[in-house]
Formats: sequence, structure tokens, C-alpha cells
Amino acid sequence: MWGGRFSEATDKFVAEFTASVNFDKRLYAHDIQGSIAHATMLGECGIITKDESRAIIDGLNQVKDEIESGQFVWRVELEDVHMNIESRLTAIVGDVGKKLHTGRSRNDQVATDIRLWLRDETDNILALLKRLQSGLLDLADKHTDTIMPGFTHLQTAQPISFAHHLMAWFEMLVRDSERLTDTRKRINQMPLGSAALAGTTYPIDRTMTARLLGFEGICQNSLDAVSDRDFAIEFASSASILMMHLSRMSEEIILWMSAQFNFVQVPDRFCTGSSIMPQKKNPDVPELVRGKAARVFGDLTTLLTLMKNQPLAYNKDNQEDKEPLFDIVDTLTGSLLAFADMLPNLVPNSENMRQATLKGYATATDLADYLVKKGLPFRDAHEVVGKAVGLGVAKSVDLAELSLDELRQFSDLIGDDVFECLTLEGSLNARNHLGGTAPQAVKLAIAKGRERIA
Amino acid sequence: MWGGRFSEATDKFVAEFTASVNFDKRLYAHDIQGSIAHATMLGECGIITKDESRAIIDGLNQVKDEIESGQFVWRVELEDVHMNIESRLTAIVGDVGKKLHTGRSRNDQVATDIRLWLRDETDNILALLKRLQSGLLDLADKHTDTIMPGFTHLQTAQPISFAHHLMAWFEMLVRDSERLTDTRKRINQMPLGSAALAGTTYPIDRTMTARLLGFEGICQNSLDAVSDRDFAIEFASSASILMMHLSRMSEEIILWMSAQFNFVQVPDRFCTGSSIMPQKKNPDVPELVRGKAARVFGDLTTLLTLMKNQPLAYNKDNQEDKEPLFDIVDTLTGSLLAFADMLPNLVPNSENMRQATLKGYATATDLADYLVKKGLPFRDAHEVVGKAVGLGVAKSVDLAELSLDELRQFSDLIGDDVFECLTLEGSLNARNHLGGTAPQAVKLAIAKGRERIA
Amino acid sequence: MWGGRFSEATDKFVAEFTASVNFDKRLYAHDIQGSIAHATMLGECGIITKDESRAIIDGLNQVKDEIESGQFVWRVELEDVHMNIESRLTAIVGDVGKKLHTGRSRNDQVATDIRLWLRDETDNILALLKRLQSGLLDLADKHTDTIMPGFTHLQTAQPISFAHHLMAWFEMLVRDSERLTDTRKRINQMPLGSAALAGTTYPIDRTMTARLLGFEGICQNSLDAVSDRDFAIEFASSASILMMHLSRMSEEIILWMSAQFNFVQVPDRFCTGSSIMPQKKNPDVPELVRGKAARVFGDLTTLLTLMKNQPLAYNKDNQEDKEPLFDIVDTLTGSLLAFADMLPNLVPNSENMRQATLKGYATATDLADYLVKKGLPFRDAHEVVGKAVGLGVAKSVDLAELSLDELRQFSDLIGDDVFECLTLEGSLNARNHLGGTAPQAVKLAIAKGRERIA
Amino acid sequence: MWGGRFSEATDKFVAEFTASVNFDKRLYAHDIQGSIAHATMLGECGIITKDESRAIIDGLNQVKDEIESGQFVWRVELEDVHMNIESRLTAIVGDVGKKLHTGRSRNDQVATDIRLWLRDETDNILALLKRLQSGLLDLADKHTDTIMPGFTHLQTAQPISFAHHLMAWFEMLVRDSERLTDTRKRINQMPLGSAALAGTTYPIDRTMTARLLGFEGICQNSLDAVSDRDFAIEFASSASILMMHLSRMSEEIILWMSAQFNFVQVPDRFCTGSSIMPQKKNPDVPELVRGKAARVFGDLTTLLTLMKNQPLAYNKDNQEDKEPLFDIVDTLTGSLLAFADMLPNLVPNSENMRQATLKGYATATDLADYLVKKGLPFRDAHEVVGKAVGLGVAKSVDLAELSLDELRQFSDLIGDDVFECLTLEGSLNARNHLGGTAPQAVKLAIAKGRERIA
Repeated sequence: MWGGRFSEATDKFVAEFTASVNFDKRLYAHDIQGSIAHATMLGECGIITKDESRAIIDGLNQVKDEIESGQFVWRVELEDVHMNIESRLTAIVGDVGKKLHTGRSRNDQVATDIRLWLRDETDNILALLKRLQSGLLDLADKHTDTIMPGFTHLQTAQPISFAHHLMAWFEMLVRDSERLTDTRKRINQMPLGSAALAGTTYPIDRTMTARLLGFEGICQNSLDAVSDRDFAIEFASSASILMMHLSRMSEEIILWMSAQFNFVQVPDRFCTGSSIMPQKKNPDVPELVRGKAARVFGDLTTLLTLMKNQPLAYNKDNQEDKEPLFDIVDTLTGSLLAFADMLPNLVPNSENMRQATLKGYATATDLADYLVKKGLPFRDAHEVVGKAVGLGVAKSVDLAELSLDELRQFSDLIGDDVFECLTLEGSLNARNHLGGTAPQAVKLAIAKGRERIA
Repeated sequence: MWGGRFSEATDKFVAEFTASVNFDKRLYAHDIQGSIAHATMLGECGIITKDESRAIIDGLNQVKDEIESGQFVWRVELEDVHMNIESRLTAIVGDVGKKLHTGRSRNDQVATDIRLWLRDETDNILALLKRLQSGLLDLADKHTDTIMPGFTHLQTAQPISFAHHLMAWFEMLVRDSERLTDTRKRINQMPLGSAALAGTTYPIDRTMTARLLGFEGICQNSLDAVSDRDFAIEFASSASILMMHLSRMSEEIILWMSAQFNFVQVPDRFCTGSSIMPQKKNPDVPELVRGKAARVFGDLTTLLTLMKNQPLAYNKDNQEDKEPLFDIVDTLTGSLLAFADMLPNLVPNSENMRQATLKGYATATDLADYLVKKGLPFRDAHEVVGKAVGLGVAKSVDLAELSLDELRQFSDLIGDDVFECLTLEGSLNARNHLGGTAPQAVKLAIAKGRERIA
Repeated sequence: MWGGRFSEATDKFVAEFTASVNFDKRLYAHDIQGSIAHATMLGECGIITKDESRAIIDGLNQVKDEIESGQFVWRVELEDVHMNIESRLTAIVGDVGKKLHTGRSRNDQVATDIRLWLRDETDNILALLKRLQSGLLDLADKHTDTIMPGFTHLQTAQPISFAHHLMAWFEMLVRDSERLTDTRKRINQMPLGSAALAGTTYPIDRTMTARLLGFEGICQNSLDAVSDRDFAIEFASSASILMMHLSRMSEEIILWMSAQFNFVQVPDRFCTGSSIMPQKKNPDVPELVRGKAARVFGDLTTLLTLMKNQPLAYNKDNQEDKEPLFDIVDTLTGSLLAFADMLPNLVPNSENMRQATLKGYATATDLADYLVKKGLPFRDAHEVVGKAVGLGVAKSVDLAELSLDELRQFSDLIGDDVFECLTLEGSLNARNHLGGTAPQAVKLAIAKGRERIA
Repeated sequence: MWGGRFSEATDKFVAEFTASVNFDKRLYAHDIQGSIAHATMLGECGIITKDESRAIIDGLNQVKDEIESGQFVWRVELEDVHMNIESRLTAIVGDVGKKLHTGRSRNDQVATDIRLWLRDETDNILALLKRLQSGLLDLADKHTDTIMPGFTHLQTAQPISFAHHLMAWFEMLVRDSERLTDTRKRINQMPLGSAALAGTTYPIDRTMTARLLGFEGICQNSLDAVSDRDFAIEFASSASILMMHLSRMSEEIILWMSAQFNFVQVPDRFCTGSSIMPQKKNPDVPELVRGKAARVFGDLTTLLTLMKNQPLAYNKDNQEDKEPLFDIVDTLTGSLLAFADMLPNLVPNSENMRQATLKGYATATDLADYLVKKGLPFRDAHEVVGKAVGLGVAKSVDLAELSLDELRQFSDLIGDDVFECLTLEGSLNARNHLGGTAPQAVKLAIAKGRERIA
């Protein structure tokens, strides 16, 4: 397709090494979608005749059918998805097919294809996110009174509810949705009409093409438009944060499934076993997702590094943008599907959770707050409770198991009413404000959560 | 401050190794800002008395003065900026100072500090971006008719104007501004009130504190709030893309300053020389900025990796979030300052640019378009022009230097009028549509650009 | 294969999501190689009978034939390459096939497979490196007197020879070979015999298996052995540095092929054209390789991040090690093949290189050295030459084009003999020491280079 | 120092932005070490007189004293450590000081400085590694019979000893030492003598300088030598793998210190508390080290990305190599110090470990092996044991707690002797081969370990 100026054929290995059709054929539907809009516009603007436009569009639809029915033969020597489709189009409709490329270049064409494809994938991911969030809300709804230890530094900190914990995950996903929605705005801009780099000499109407393709904006500078891959990097970054969130949930599920925590059960259908240890029931899905986060981070590194130092406008380096992007979308989609199925089916072992909460001096802060309310400055109360905990550790009992006399040796502000604030329910109920773990507050958060994803 | 439960003092090296005050003291102003709002709220809600609140606020202001006048003594054994300030506060105002920490924890305090600080830095960066954009518009305004070669694959592609090239840079920065503005929304959410992880037992009013601090939203889940560093990662990502853009501009300026391109002059005050080669005038600023992009990418990697796999809620790993974030802000701010000064002072060597454009068959596409308009399908026109270029290469002349007879041997559609479309000005003017390089189109883009940053 | 303990079948999506056979089947030959050695050892140690051992080995060879002839049916429900092969083995040889897994686990098996495979790939890469180096030496041999500008900061610095430049590339590759050879030592250690994590209860002989498989060492701790992926990360790092080197060569070739430099010609068969600009001849291969470097960096990030925080011993996260590793090997192998073909065929445009060297005050350092030899301290000489260059810039002439009188106005130490040291050949010949650019020194370096890769 | 050719002074902000003295002054000792060797060689080769050489060396020693006594005034306008020292030298010794820079450039000087410095730091790190390894061996020595659960997928897998687990850590560190030792070879090569990029016109003797500085090799190509930062990247990679290992140990210590595992105690002096929760004793050191691993990964990303695409020879981008390298060395050194102090002081809670091992069907594999030895193929034995475990789960008892009759319902190969192989000690002792967890095997590994680090 560009042989005129060349005195020898491309080296066979070079042809294969530089061809992209083996992976970019995945874009065929969006390539044809873009070409149909382009042909429509060319016809409407009188750059080609309406008949030519119609013939091209019919031909493109036929190519699409051939691809989807498996008849289409992809050829590496035609380099990429664009030339494969155009070549077949011309075979079908004759010389008029050669007019499709009028007023565009592969540089703006491929940028348009990726954006159309990524817009669709983003919408799919947003839908999966919502499904996962909805499952979390349903599960949380049942567990606003299921008490478990809240950890900091993986040390027992304060009593919380399982629902409150699940709602922390929900919040992470809310941000992911917001971020992807913001990213989508920048994906959904049209480069088509930039041609190779400088625009075209034909009287094209970019507004019409953008409208036909559902783009919400038009790239304002042709040089920038053909070389801009910001949207891919931004998507990779939003995806990385999302996967980081899934890795955090995974870590916790793995911990909770250990014999030591034994906080949740994951149904057998989400687990696998061992080829050598017959007793094993392994949390393969969360482990794999935890690992897959690393993969998406790597793809982000690739895309960002790829663009560093590139002079304007299009360079062949950019061909390397597609595989990482495909990999991110596949990884994200698979991981979200697995989580949307699995998470709502977690079964908490409530009694184990409760016992664990009773053991770690989880209500020490409540005792300090109790003292503060009796007039002691917080820092002094902290000191008093530290000593009480020290006694508990020495006697191997929890705070609520110390006698009033034992407690009073550290401060005579402590009275009979102290034991109420040392119960788990008392502790939980006391944190009753926006964002707190009190059942009432969490119920509100769940109700609000339903509205936020509606 | 937490010794009650401990039976031996912290190891000296461990104390230093885990302390953060050497770097987090940078947050002092925002720490005090947050504490003043917190104390105000505690007073308004009756959790402490109004007098106590006033005393604390006065004390905090005094601490701030001491820090800014250089009198304050930072102590590593007090771990971090928070305890240093609180300790000094208590020394000044007495026991009432110990009440400041009521209803909060260092976990929500530090998260609040970073967000307040990063919000201010983001605003500063947005202002610098605008200054740089404005300088680009001014320079572009003068050069809509300054013709240079547009490159793809660093090969001469088509004639463009210097202004059009500058406007490609402008577009990159527009996206950076949009992205940072979106990121700012997620920075500007208040974690305060989450306390250690589960909320607090005091009747706090988070809405009041948020209003006092100018937060536009409140983190909805306490567990999530103390452990969420998404905003830092998202900022790092936006910063990385911005630095990637600066690296691309740098690469081009470095190329243009080479003896081989010789497209621009950079004033001596932005360059440095060599200790051994007396003739050298080196583009140190763009080279350094190109290098600094790598640094910000590394910081992004750090922040993202840091959060992977972390169970809820706060873990000490998070202390490692600050230095990369500080490094990004310093790198970004310095690089933008340097570019905002330097870029508007670039002086194009217009004649060299023009000569370069005349040499690379830059109007070959125009010849193809000419043939298409005479009725040849684009793919066939491409073939004809390829052969004409081949002849030009063989004769070492440009297309416009071939005779009409020579041209016509490839297609008899070529007539006398062909030479007009082979001029640089003709080529430029022909690309007159939204995003194209025609002077008229670029002038419109500049005018629109002024509105977009207004 | 692990169903006994499970009460419900694996979810269909989970089965596909966690299966690895679609990519790890690539390891089939090394899996069979490892299994044959394991079966041999089991037989020799009397853990199974010699007849059983022989039957298993014959069966494995038949499986291999079936795979290589395309008859083998890979089944996703059998999870991975190991179970696919074992399952077919048992179908062929009957129940004795079930004895193959005695004394091993998939954990040590897969670690062994990857190491065997990577050892072979490393050897292949080392051979490709040598081929590329040899091509560079041949080309350098012809160009020890071909003078070109040496750049620092992409500014003309001092005259060098094209051979000297090529030998800088050669040196980079020498380090790559050394690094990969060091890495190979740590790849070539045998985990087999570690079983799931703790070793096995059978009287195995690991030394025998290691000898049969050509391992040069045995992993000394079973827990570590099944979870260690250091060798993969180290390989990724060595590969990243190698790709970074290729990216640097690519950058230079791309620069040199630009119309502005015009320093080299790359034969047409290594270039491609444009679908819209008929005159284009693009350096696709170096551009693509430059982009592919980013890809390998991303894989390194993935592998390193994957292993962070993993508790002992094997976790499912590790399944994600294979695809990045395969990607690195494919990328590296392809890039080296392309370069080994292309680089020796670069054709320098000697005259353009020479003219470029004559223009950039490349001999300024020689003038300074001349003055030093006449007694001026270096720093003062530097100052004098700086002024002479200033005059040259003002008059648009090179140093050698200034008159003796003009030169003497900056220092009367300058005499008639100065012009000799201002010639390109004089400058080159003067740097005649180990590592210098003098033709004699470079010839020695080439001769030594031949010995180093022999 | 390079003003001759410049018509205006450097912009003040640019001067600060491009200066490196604020961080590279850290290299002062190695800069002076290199300069003394250079001056010695210049004197020996007659390039300067012996008197001049002696005067310069005396002056350099005085500068060193001034720096170390705190008298030295660093000046940003002198750019970097090199010019600061040379400037002061000339102030002390007069014009002869200006002769020091004869035959070298800052390009080869700075590369030499970093290599000298990094060689010393590598030696220090190797010593710290040995100290940590030695502490692990001592602790392991006491615990070859301390039984704990070995995990895969964080599920109880098989019984192992605490010593065996510690020896897995030891093995990781062995590889780190080997890798750093290999890296050190490539650090310890001398670039000095390459001058700016092409070598020098003076009759230098690089072999002499290399000998004086203890370099084991000389960089063979001047262009490559001034731009090569492979050694820094390779060091960063080795450091990243080391930090990844520390992150894995950290993860396990954090898990083990949780109330749920409760496997080890870490002395109070290595822990810190909470400002709000008086009961907390947090594993700050391992958490921080886990976080710091991310930091070193980021530095590796920076260094690798920095070098991508750089044309030869030196570019200012390279100035950005120092801060990441300094950061890696500081992070590594601090983390190793903390671990070398802390790890040998871990106190296992042996009884908790034992109880945990008794609960997770840890001897299921032993039962399978028992059946295999009675003649059942491994795959069938696996199935039998899976069912027995299923019964245990249903009855909430371990395998050893099932009756013989219960066990025999799954296979009548099971006899009275089965209970011996189901004990923890029996399981451990049975894995008695190179790399296995049997106390005898681990004792051998410890003894061998002592030799390996001797």
C-alpha cells in the first residue's frame, strides 16, 4: 500500500515484527463503525457521491458479517486491522472502496478506533462495578450488628461491624466509578479529521462525524490528536487504583479464610484444592486477583514510559499502546466479574468474629473516653488506660474482666457505670455519627449508598 | 505518649527510623489549620468549653508563629509534626492542650493535613499551568505563518506552522488542567472525625469542621477514610502525565537546538556550558526536565505499590506516602516554573524551518489530494505520487522542482495548476478546518484558547 | 484432581479464570523433560519399579509426540499444563501414570519447568547477542576513519569516528551478556524435591535429578524453593537494561535517519511507508523497539510487585509470573533478531557526517589543550577558547576558519602550529589511549572485542 | 566556569534548578579520592610536575579537612560538588589548582565518584546482610524442633519447624549477597580518562589511576563510559529484590504478631503505640520496611526510565541519577540495620504454633503418602484422604482424632500404624533430605549456612 517509493520489498521477518493485525483485529467492529461514519460524512459533504458512500457502507457491513461469521481471512502482510478491512472492502465493492481513505489517515483512524472501543469497555466496567457495589450493599444490610475487630497495624483496635467494613470497600468502589466517569470524558473526544498530522485538504465536517459516533467533543489540534494517548494512561491509572482496591479486599479475604482468623467462609465453588495436600481449600480467586493487580500496574508503567520523550506527531512506538490496554481491560473485567459473583456470597463466622473482638482490649479507647467525660484530659486518660491494659496483659484477661477495684487503682474517677462502656455493643453504638460504625450510622450509609449507585 | 502499656523504652535507632518529623514538619501550617478548626468545633459542640477552645486556638497560633520565626525546636523523639506541635501547645497553655486530641486520632489528623496541603499545592500548580499556557498562546500568536516541517516518525511529513505545533503543546496542558481539576475534587474530602478507624464517642459535628476547612465533601466511612490514599495516587498519575508532556516538549526543544535542526534559539540565561568544551551551549533545562519526568513516574510506582495488599485500616506503611508526594510537588512546581519562563522566550529560526520544509517532499500528500480531486481514487493517487517522489529522490530535487513533463509521465491528470498546490503556503492554507494547520484555523484555535484559560 | 474435600463443583467462570493452561502449555517440553528425570530418579531410588519408570517415560514421550504433531487436545478444566499432560499420560499408560506425581507437587514442578525453559531461552538470547555484537564489529572495522560529530547534550562536542560510536554500543551489549550469564547461574538451580513446601517423605535423590537435568545447583530450602521467583525478576531486570540499550541505539538511528541529520541510510527492507504520505520511509523497526522497551519495563514492574508482601510459601499470585516472563522473552528475542539483521546493514553518509563535524566548533577542546601544553592552566585556556568561539559564532565561521591574528587577540601563546590541532584528523589521532577515539585505539578495541565474544 | 561563550548570565532560578550541589556534596570524599589519584597520575606521567601534583594533593586534603570540620562553605552558584571543591582548591593553592582538571571532564569525574561511593556502600550493605544472616542462623539453631504450620495460600499445609522457616529467609539473603557481589564487579570499573566523551589528548595512564583507586577494570569506550548508568540500575534492581524479601519477612512478622496468629513476640523496644488506643503495640518496624520496599521499586523505575531513549553521550538527564541512588542506599541500610537488630530477638510462642499445627489437617499429605507406600497410586490416595478430611471438617476434628474405623471406611489399606505418621513429629522427621524440614536436615542446612557466610 505504500510501495511506490520503495526499491525493495519489506524483509519477511520485519513485516511480521511490525505488523499489528494479530492483536488489533480485536478493534474490527469499532474500525467499521468509524469508517461508516466517515463514509457517511464524505457523502453528505459531497467529497464522494451519495452512491459511493452507500456502496462503501454496504460493503463495510458485509465485511463485518464476514468477520463475525468467521469467514474473513486476516492477512499479516496487510499489516493491521485497517488495511485488512479496506482491502476486503475494495475486493467487494471495487475501486470505489479506495475512496474510503479520502481525508483521513491511519493515524487518526486508529486513534478513533481505540477511543470508541475503550468507551464501550469503560461502560461495561462501570456496569460491573455497580453490580459489585449492589452485592456489597445487600450483604452489609444483613450485618450491621455483626461485630468484628477493627484493625490498625493488623492489631485489634476497636470493635466495628462487618457491615461497616464492607461499606469501606463500597466507598473505594464509589471513587473508582467517579474516576472512570471522569476518565470517560477524556476518552470520548474525536481525533478523526486530523488525518496524518496536519488536517486534510478536503472540506470535511468533523462535527457531523462526531455526532454520528456519539463523541462528546472534538480534538482541537491535529498534531496533538494523532499522538495523544493520555486517555489510555489515565484509564490505566484508574484501573490500577481499582485493582489496588481489589488487592486490598483480596488480602483481607485471604486473611479471614485462614485457620487463624476463620472469620469468613467462601463457598467451595470459588475455591480450588491442591494436587498434593488433600485437605486444602485455597482462596485462589482473591489470590489471583491480588496477583493480577501487579499486572495492571505493569501495564500502566508501560503506557506512561512509552509516551515519554516522544516528539510530535505519530511515531511507531504508539503501536505498543494496544496490547497493554487490551490486557488491562481483560484483567479488570475478569476480576470484577469474579468479585461480583463471589463477594455477596461471603458468609461471616459471626461467633468467631465476636470472640476475637472480646480478646484484644478493643474497648480501651472507650475507657479513655469515659475518663475524659469524667473530666480527665485525653492524654492523661490515655496513660491511665495504658496501665490498666498492662495489668490485663499480665493477668491474661480483657479490660471488662478486671474488677472495679483493680480498675480504680489507676484512677478513682472510674465507677460502676464503666462496665457498660466496655461492652462491644456499647462501644459500637457510641460511634454514632456520619461515617461512624454505630449500626444506626451504617444503616444510613447503606441507604445512601443505594441512592448513590441508582 | 503511648508508654503506659510498654515495659521498655523504644530502641534509639528504631525511634529515629520510624520517626517522620524530619519530613512531615513541612505540613505544620496545615496541621495547625486543621487543629484550629477541630478545636472550634469541639467548643461549639460543647465537647470542651468555649474558653478551652479559645485557649487552644491562641496557643496554636503562637506555635505557628514560633515555627515561622525559626524559634521552634523540632524533636525526633516526639515522632511527628502532630506530637511536636501538641507537645509545645501543652507547654504553652497547660493541661487544656491535652484536650485538643479529644475525638480525633493521628490517623484522621494526618490524612486531613495531607489533603489540605495537597489542595493548596494543586491550586498553585493549576496557576502555573495557566501561566505557561498563556505564554504559549502569546508566542503562537506571532507565528501562525511561520512554516516548519511537521514530522511523523521524525521524517518530514507535511508543512505545518510553528503556531500549530505550539498549540499542540497547549492542548496537552488543557487536559492536564482538566485532570488536576477532577483530581482536586477527590482530594478535597474530609477524613477528620474518623478518629483511629471507627469514629468517635463524642458528639462531633463533621459538617461544621468541613465547612470551616473548605472541604467540599466528607469521607463517608471511617475505616476507609483513615486508610484511603487514592487521592495521592491519582494526583501522582495526573502529575506523571503532565511531566510526560513536558518531557515531550523537552525532547523537541533539544532536537531543535541541535546544530542539525537549528530550528530555535533558547536565550543564554536558560542554558549552561561545559567545564571542558568551551564552545558548548547546552539545553540543560529541557534535559533536566526530561530526566525529572522519570522521577515522578517512580514516585507514582511507589505510591501505587505502597497501597497494594494493605488490609484495613491504617498501617504504618502509609507513612511512606509523604516523601514521594512532596517530591512530586517540588518537581512539578520547579519544572513548570522553568518552562513558564523559558518557553515564551523561544526564538524560531524561521528561515531554517522553511528550508527544511522545502526539502522533504512535504507536499506529496497535496499532490495525491490534487489527483483525487481530478477523479483518481486515493489509493491510486498514492501510488502515482510514490513514483514521482522516487524520481525526485533519484534526481535529488523536491516535487516542486520536477518539470510538468516529468510529473505527467506518472499521470496525465496532472496539469499546470499542480504547482500551486505544491507550495508551502498552498499546502498550509488548504487544511482549513477545526484542528487543521491553516493560519486561519490556528488563529481561531488561539482565540478559543484564550477563552478556555480565562 | 482435588475434589475429595469439596462439596460443590468449581464455578465455570472461576475454573476458566483460574486456569493457566492457555498460556502455560508453552512449557510442555520442559514439563515433560522434568517429569522424565523425576520418573528416572523414582525408578533408580526404588520408589517406583524400573518397569513403572520405563512405562511412564515411554508414555511421556508419546504425549510429547502428540503435542508436537498437533493431535493433543488441551482441556481448560484440567487447569494447567501439568494436569493436562498427566491426565493424558494416565490415559495412555493406565494407573501407573498416577504414580508419576509421587514425591513432588505442582509447586516444585512448575518452578522447575520455568527454570528449565528460561535457561534455554537465556542461551538463545546470549547467542543472538553475540550475533549482533559480531555484526557491529564487522561494521566498525570499516569505519575507524569515518569521522562524525560526538555529541553531549545533543550538541556537537568533539570529533569521533563512526566506529568508536558503534563500539560504545558494543560495550553496552558486553555488559548485557555478562549480566545474563550471571543471572543464568541463579536460574539454573533446581527446586524439584521440595514438593508442596516442606519436602517429601519418599527417599528421593535430588542430586541425581539435578544431574539428569543439567542443573548446576539445588535449592537448599524447600519453603523458599517453591516460592522463589528472584530468578524471573533478575532476568526481567537484565532484559530491561538490554532493551534500554536497544532503545538508545534506536533513538540514534531514528535521529540519524531524519532529513536534518541524514547520517545513515537504512535499507528499504527494514522500513515501511505511509498510507497517506507517499514520500515517507519510516524507521519502523527502531521506533517499535524503542516502544517495546517500555513493555519490558512494565513486565519487570509486574514481577517485582507480584512478589512484594507474599508470605511463604506458594500463593496463587505466582501464577501471574508466566505471562510477563513469556512476553519479555518474545519481545527480547524479536528485537534482537531485528537488530542483528538491521544494524550491520546501516550505511553511513560519511560526507554528511564530516560536514556536520566541521561546523560545530568540535575542536575547541583541542585548542584549549594546545594552550595548556603551551603552559596556560586549563581553566584559563577554557576561558580563552570560549572567547574565540564567541567570535566564530559572531562571524559564522568555525575555529579553523579564523585567522591567526584573530586567534592571537585572545592569547599570544597561539602560533602557526595551531591549525594542525584544529583539523578533524588531528583531533581524532590525538585521543590515542585505551578507550579513546583515535583510529589506532579503536582498531585495538575491535580486535579485543573479537576475542571477548569468541 | 564556562562563561566565555555566553552573552548573558544564567537566570537565577535556572541556576538553582540545574544545580546539584545540594545533594551531590555527599560525594565529596570520593570526589577528592578520585582527584588525588588523578593528580598523582598526572604527576607520574609528566603531564604536570611532581611539585604541582604534590601541591594539588595537599590542597585537596586540606579541602577535605575543611569539609569534615564543617568550615567549608558550599555555594550553589558553583553548581556541583566538583566545582565547589576545585574552586576552593584554587583559592588555597593558587593557579596550580586549575591544572587538576587537565585530561578529564566532569562527565568522567562524576561517573567515577558515584562508582567509588557505591562500591563502598555495597560493601557496607554486604556486611549488614552477613550480620542479619548470622542472627538468623543463631535463632534457627534453637528452633529446629519448634513446630509450626507451614502455609501455602495462607492455608495450613504441612508441619514445618520454625528453624526451617527462618532458613527460607536465610536463603533469600544468600541470593541477595550473590547478586550484589556480581553487581559490584560491574560497579567497580573505571570511567576516568574518558574525559568529556572522546578521551583526551594528554598522555594519561588509565591503568595507573585504576590501580590507585582499586578499580578492577577500566571502561573500554569513552563514549559509553560517560553515559553508562547500568551499574546504578543493576544495583537498584538487586536492592529492590532485597527489599522485596524484607517485605515478605515483614508481612509474616506482622501476621504472626496479630492476636489471631499470636506466633511470635517482638520486644517492646522495636514497637510503638497509638496516640488514641492505649492497648496497642504495633509492629511499626516491619510495616515501615514493607512500605519502604515500594520506595526502592519506585527508584528503580526512575533510574531505568531515565536512561531510556538517551542518545550518546552524556545528557543532563543523568544528573537525576543521584537522588534515587542515595535514597536506595539509605533505605536499604536503615532497613537492614533495623532487621539485623530485631530479627534475632523474635520470640516464638511455641505452644501457640503447635496448637495451630494440630488443627489444620496438616498431616493429610502424610496420610496420602502412607497409602501410596501401601500400594495405592498417589492420585487415588489423594482422593481417599480428601474424603477423610471432609469427615473431619464435618465432625470438627483433626485426622488424628478420627477413629481407625472411621478412617478405614475410606480405604482398608489403613491400619493401626497410621497414627504414627499423623503425629507432627512423625511428619517432620519423615522429610529428611536436602532442603526438607526434618530437624536433622535443617541442622545440616544451618551448619552449611555458617560456612557459606564465613
